Amino acid sequence: MRTDICERFGIEYPIFGFTPSEHVAAAITRAGGMGVLGCVRFNEADELEEVLNWMDENTDGKPYGVDIVMPAKIPTEGTTMDLDALIPAEHRAFVDRTLNDLGVPPLATGHAHAVGVLGWLHSVARSHVDVALKHPIKLIANALGSPPKDIIDQSHEHGVPVAALAGAVSHARHHVENGVDIVIAQGYEAGGHTGEIASMVLVPEIVDAVGDDTVVLAAGGIGSGRQIAAALALGAQGVWMGSYWLTCSEYKLGSAAGGLSATQRALLAATSSDTVRTRIFSGKPARLLKTKWTEAWSKPDAPSPLPMPLQNILVGEAHARIAASADPEVVAMPVGQIVGRMNEIRSVADVMTGLIAEFDAAATRITKAAN
Amino acid sequence: MRTDICERFGIEYPIFGFTPSEHVAAAITRAGGMGVLGCVRFNEADELEEVLNWMDENTDGKPYGVDIVMPAKIPTEGTTMDLDALIPAEHRAFVDRTLNDLGVPPLATGHAHAVGVLGWLHSVARSHVDVALKHPIKLIANALGSPPKDIIDQSHEHGVPVAALAGAVSHARHHVENGVDIVIAQGYEAGGHTGEIASMVLVPEIVDAVGDDTVVLAAGGIGSGRQIAAALALGAQGVWMGSYWLTCSEYKLGSAAGGLSATQRALLAATSSDTVRTRIFSGKPARLLKTKWTEAWSKPDAPSPLPMPLQNILVGEAHARIAASADPEVVAMPVGQIVGRMNEIRSVADVMTGLIAEFDAAATRITKAAN
Repeated sequence: MRTDICERFGIEYPIFGFTPSEHVAAAITRAGGMGVLGCVRFNEADELEEVLNWMDENTDGKPYGVDIVMPAKIPTEGTTMDLDALIPAEHRAFVDRTLNDLGVPPLATGHAHAVGVLGWLHSVARSHVDVALKHPIKLIANALGSPPKDIIDQSHEHGVPVAALAGAVSHARHHVENGVDIVIAQGYEAGGHTGEIASMVLVPEIVDAVGDDTVVLAAGGIGSGRQIAAALALGAQGVWMGSYWLTCSEYKLGSAAGGLSATQRALLAATSSDTVRTRIFSGKPARLLKTKWTEAWSKPDAPSPLPMPLQNILVGEAHARIAASADPEVVAMPVGQIVGRMNEIRSVADVMTGLIAEFDAAATRITKAAN
Repeated sequence: MRTDICERFGIEYPIFGFTPSEHVAAAITRAGGMGVLGCVRFNEADELEEVLNWMDENTDGKPYGVDIVMPAKIPTEGTTMDLDALIPAEHRAFVDRTLNDLGVPPLATGHAHAVGVLGWLHSVARSHVDVALKHPIKLIANALGSPPKDIIDQSHEHGVPVAALAGAVSHARHHVENGVDIVIAQGYEAGGHTGEIASMVLVPEIVDAVGDDTVVLAAGGIGSGRQIAAALALGAQGVWMGSYWLTCSEYKLGSAAGGLSATQRALLAATSSDTVRTRIFSGKPARLLKTKWTEAWSKPDAPSPLPMPLQNILVGEAHARIAASADPEVVAMPVGQIVGRMNEIRSVADVMTGLIAEFDAAATRITKAAN
């Protein structure tokens, strides 16, 4: 499994793996893909610095990247306190009542609850970029829109290409105009923030729209070698996988005693029908695992989710409480429709070996059909 | 472009083309695919008989099929009058008010308005089967659920295989248990009745679920050779295309003077973002072209659509009025997200040639990536 971008990025396989876990990201890189570390969970630049030092020591000199979240359009400077004041009491009451109804206990006194909130702010994301560019990163991706022009310029000055996710042709064109090097065409079936157009239609549309100078990766619904072959058939030069790594053995976030986390147990049990695209996670449509938490927000008494970033702040403590309660029936987790195929815990290396073998079998089938 | 099913069905390419137009269906068959004529528009068996006689004369002895609509679960016997009584006055008032607001005139006196309504009833669909089996058809497909067991048996006695659409693995398993020979895995991106799981995820799930004895065709979002290659990569043995034929030059339904119909003009102008999945067409979720008509139903004052078949009866006259008014901004038409690639009127033969050439190019790319 090899395309033109392998040489350009110094990778063995055109598989880009997004994950918030440095252990998973490093394992993807070591297995010949491009591990891309999600940075939104780091509130402080020092935390990220420490983790990137660990990445440098555990990737055998092979390439890795980082993913930041810089929404293009929201006014996010100011203190958390300022933003807190914009959240209606009705919304807070609904969250409290729902958590109570679902049996999710309050956090222990003194437990930090703002996890993941500050990483959405531009000031924090810029500090992530500054830190990351001091490391030998080979990619900066932005999960929401084009990064600001000065960030793109700063990355290019360091020789680091920039990637951005697109859920429609118009987003992709906008990215290219802004100087983005790699467009990640993310279909409806993807986990997290996603649009309404499915990969089968979106990927070739974006490939045709951006022209030959822009690399297109396919994202959304990919967790097998057949799907990678399909992505390349559609014209992508590689794939971007996110959800599938959540049930890898190296993924330890949220697991208390080294065993499976409640989230992982929920993911292993879910079918492809057990996701929902909703604004409750961040204020923008994102696909989540369907659980009692997402169901509560779809009931008639539930308020409409707030715009980004207010919704994320509203549910920040709820997410921390849900994580601490460790109940597989009450989980707040972005994941794509590929969750139906995430049915066992496997190592990253084992997953990668399987992807490549199945890709080869699919390619053989296509080659035969063409002759 | 050739798979194992080509020999079984006596076709040159594994492309199944569903269309309500006998001119398009015959052209697909003549071009080496399997034209499948949609029968729901025929209220009387005699009308279908006449059209199938025409098909026999215009398909050069090559194979074609028919598509009936037999919802598995609804009580549909009884007169139209019985069903009419179940439609709330509020719904009728909304439809009248909306058509008036959109400038859609009433039908001329005496104009039949029940087009397409009766074809949903089991008694009518059974008469379609009886008529069709007297012709040399090579396939009977059912667009909604498994056909009743006796219909499957009747088809098999005539040596005619049966196909059924599936939007989830559970549907596919149910079809196979009922004796269906061909499962059409129809993804979220498809036009008409469709589920929530996108093709990239759905097709391999269904391929793995039904086993080797059942043929799987991929449907949803397919209108290019790259997408056919992707479908085969995902494990399908062929594709089922519906939307894409609506802008073929042979498609004349709804065009008054032989020029483009208002629907075709609307389809040519639409992007992949211009569809909506809604229950307003039939009572079950179906993807339609987004127009002022669908937008009216999504406003806060709109009633909830009725269950099948009441919604179809409710909007039957509205569809006839909309068709007669010939306004491209007020159209009621099922179409998939592939509509964004339907940008010119082409002959069926030209479309087929393009599909095959692009498939070959995609296959060459995959073959290279695997070596």
